[in-house]
Order: sequence, then C-alpha cells, then structure tokens
Amino acid sequence: MSDKSSEIEEGTAFQPKFDANGLITTVVTDAASGELLMVAHMNAEALRRTIETGDAWYFSRSRQQLWRKGETSGHGQRVVELRVDCDQDSVWLKVEQQGAGACHTGRRSCFYRAVPLGKNGVALQFREEGKAFDPEAVYRKK
Amino acid sequence: MSDKSSEIEEGTAFQPKFDANGLITTVVTDAASGELLMVAHMNAEALRRTIETGDAWYFSRSRQQLWRKGETSGHGQRVVELRVDCDQDSVWLKVEQQGAGACHTGRRSCFYRAVPLGKNGVALQFREEGKAFDPEAVYRKK
Repeated sequence: MSDKSSEIEEGTAFQPKFDANGLITTVVTDAASGELLMVAHMNAEALRRTIETGDAWYFSRSRQQLWRKGETSGHGQRVVELRVDCDQDSVWLKVEQQGAGACHTGRRSCFYRAVPLGKNGVALQFREEGKAFDPEAVYRKK
Repeated sequence: MSDKSSEIEEGTAFQPKFDANGLITTVVTDAASGELLMVAHMNAEALRRTIETGDAWYFSRSRQQLWRKGETSGHGQRVVELRVDCDQDSVWLKVEQQGAGACHTGRRSCFYRAVPLGKNGVALQFREEGKAFDPEAVYRKK
C-alpha cells in the first residue's frame, strides 16, 4: 500500500474524491429504521453546505443544479451522521426524513422494487404497498 | 412525466441504466443488521452473474476487472435480496456477509469514519474500534 492510499484509508484528513463530473456518490439511510432511502450525488458545494448546515444538499445530474432536499416537496432531511468510506469516494448520510417519504414517486424509499434472483429477465416485484404521499400534489409548482 | 419515465419508475421491467463507463452503483447492506457495508459498481456481466448465482459479483474500476466478492479474501456475500431504485440507475444488495468483514482495510464496513458536522475541515472520527481481521493475512497472495 502506498503512503498516499494509507493516508486516505487510515488518516483523519477528509479528502473527498470527486469523480470526473465533480460528484461524489451519496447513500442516504433513515437514522431510526436503518432503511435505505435513496442514492444521490453531491458536488463540493453541496457537501460543504451539508456539513455546515446539517441539512442534506445534493447536486441534480438531470437538472445540473444544486438543491436542498425538501425545497420543493417540504420533505427535507436533517443529517444525524455523515460518514466517508475507505477510499473516500462515497459518503453516507444517516438522516431524519421529514414528511412522508424521500422518493419523488411518492414512496418512502426509492428502492421499492425487488429483482427476483435465480434467473434473469423476471418481472420486478413491488415491495412498498401503494404510495406514502401524492407526488402530483407535493411537487406541483406553487 | 413521459411514458418512458413512467414505465421505468412504475413498471415491472428491469431496465438497469448503466453509466458512461457501463457501470451501475451498488449499495451493499448487511441483511441482518441493516448496516451499510460498502458501495461498489457492477457492469452488466456482474449484475447477470449476481442474479443467476446469488453470489455478489462486482466490477473493479481500479483493476478494470470482474470479481466475485470473497474470491481472494474468502469473505463472500450471499445475496438475500436485490432491489432497484426509481430511475433504475442504482441497485441495493442485502447480503449475508461471510467472514469477519467486507472492507479490504480489515473492517466490517467501509464506512468506519465520521465527518463531524457544523464546520468544514475538522478531523475525521473513527467509528469502528480496531480491525475485524488482519488484511495483510487475508489478502496476501497465496
């Protein structure tokens, strides 16, 4: 192991490694239940704001825009703990999810469908019954 | 919402969306404890093998190589459930982690350090005491 990777893996300096697009993968779980809510991305500014404010900020790849979770939906996320992985190219937010859910489709979690194992090409199975909120009402432009 | 995004989000067809490098982000949690173990990547072949065998296969970006988790360390992962997110660009594996840990540094989880909130530039705090196994012994070339 090189001195550099040793420092990244075993040191106490936070050196987030952003990808070619300037983003870092962000895993978001519910601090109380442990449930995986969503996977998102942060740029350096979103990460800086998240650390300083304790509110979850992300960078939208589709809109190419910084956003605070909940700014449209009201379903914000308060960060309870922020962690970084061994090679510092992913971060993990444990959050208190405000409102009924994290997913823009109206579910609590974005991961509401299972892929059956054993054979490829089998239909997905829904794991969340119905929706936690009405996305049309929540995301309607005011 | 277009018909296409509606089908991707609300349908039962598995249409994994690989990125420009042919990879999909994979979040791996411990099926029993719910703990986040690691974030990895799969290419189409790793995903196909994982679904068919129930063993976790990944694609190493640093080595540009397909690998079965545990093939060197013996610390394999049996997949209990595989899920996909709303826009089908991330998957979630709930696994039974074999051996002492998932991280190549010798820890159970790759996310063993916390980033303090409130101010940028503060030293990382270790959250796993010591190591779960000796990486030198486990990864030594046989």
